[in-house]
Amino acid sequence: MDHVEDAVRETMAEVGTVLFVPWALDDLDAYTSTVRQRLERMELAVSGIHEHADPIAAVNEAEALFIGGGNTFRLLFRLYGAGVMPAIRARVTDGMPYMGSSAGSNMACATIMTTNDMPIVYPPSFDALQLVSFQINPHYLDADPDSTHKGETREDRIREYHEMNDTPVVGLREGAWLRVVGDEVRLEGHRGALILRRGQPAEEFEPGARLDFLLA
Amino acid sequence: MDHVEDAVRETMAEVGTVLFVPWALDDLDAYTSTVRQRLERMELAVSGIHEHADPIAAVNEAEALFIGGGNTFRLLFRLYGAGVMPAIRARVTDGMPYMGSSAGSNMACATIMTTNDMPIVYPPSFDALQLVSFQINPHYLDADPDSTHKGETREDRIREYHEMNDTPVVGLREGAWLRVVGDEVRLEGHRGALILRRGQPAEEFEPGARLDFLLA
Repeated sequence: MDHVEDAVRETMAEVGTVLFVPWALDDLDAYTSTVRQRLERMELAVSGIHEHADPIAAVNEAEALFIGGGNTFRLLFRLYGAGVMPAIRARVTDGMPYMGSSAGSNMACATIMTTNDMPIVYPPSFDALQLVSFQINPHYLDADPDSTHKGETREDRIREYHEMNDTPVVGLREGAWLRVVGDEVRLEGHRGALILRRGQPAEEFEPGARLDFLLA
Repeated sequence: MDHVEDAVRETMAEVGTVLFVPWALDDLDAYTSTVRQRLERMELAVSGIHEHADPIAAVNEAEALFIGGGNTFRLLFRLYGAGVMPAIRARVTDGMPYMGSSAGSNMACATIMTTNDMPIVYPPSFDALQLVSFQINPHYLDADPDSTHKGETREDRIREYHEMNDTPVVGLREGAWLRVVGDEVRLEGHRGALILRRGQPAEEFEPGARLDFLLA
């Protein structure tokens, strides 16, 4: 988390505790412990959502939410299972800071249809939290021109998504992230991102770019 | 298809026509035309399932079935939509030759939970044709020790599958395939495969290996 420490401090400037959602991984306590140790170094106290008897109340009482990475299908399955989706959506719409890494960034989107993960469990829907109206593809990988691999490239996969769907997709390379505040979307980090749209060539954006048009 | 021509000829030795399922791709006519041209060189006539007014009748009257690759979610969505799943399962159980490449090999398994594809459409279930009791992961990729990519490796993803499921997974590298005849499972092609089981280290198998134990 070192490369995003400044961004995390700014996002969490007004809060002292963060509710962490480790459900994308298998070992909830270990994951929460790792995150707790790292966020304590920023003077942020952490509780794991699985440590609360009533997860909906935990969301309603939280100061900020962080959803960690792992398997997107497992994460969504458990979010639906716990019944916390409406509460999270309501609180974040109302201004509670939300931070998501990897699968946790997929969760902020309209659907999980642009995850890279294996469908290891069947969720009741592919609809995600719908905090933003666009899609994110995390860990975006440019095609390797020397590869002999016959499977689809990441761009092929997103083109397939656009054969069935209209929503623009932000392909975030390692080390890039989006910060959304009100109507502003900023591309941050040390590497750029691609925006892929149905029937159009991919567009490249550099760190620092404003992508507010994605919310329009 | 050149590297599998002998295997296709043997599998299709008793038949003159093949029913092709192009539903994993977007352009059904183009895909069917490509496959038709290639199989005609082996004296096999091809019809696309989308060219039939009644796809269930087409399955019931077919001599052999070939399900092509593309997006596994789209393929499964359309197989359920057309109502052909029970007919395919009945015919193949009764001895009709079935050939599947990539997404078409995922379809032969218990579920699509070990596909590599993006979930671009929500199918009514992850249950696949259940022609075999194990799982296939096609296009299996060994981890690149020099990669700086922070996303999960293929083995990580299959380990996540085994955190939620018990079924053994065959990781088929490019150029490897399985031939199942009765109770016999042979690993063929010029590259080996891995078998990944819950809580156990991956096991390597060489071309020519008998994997009958997978059906036991």
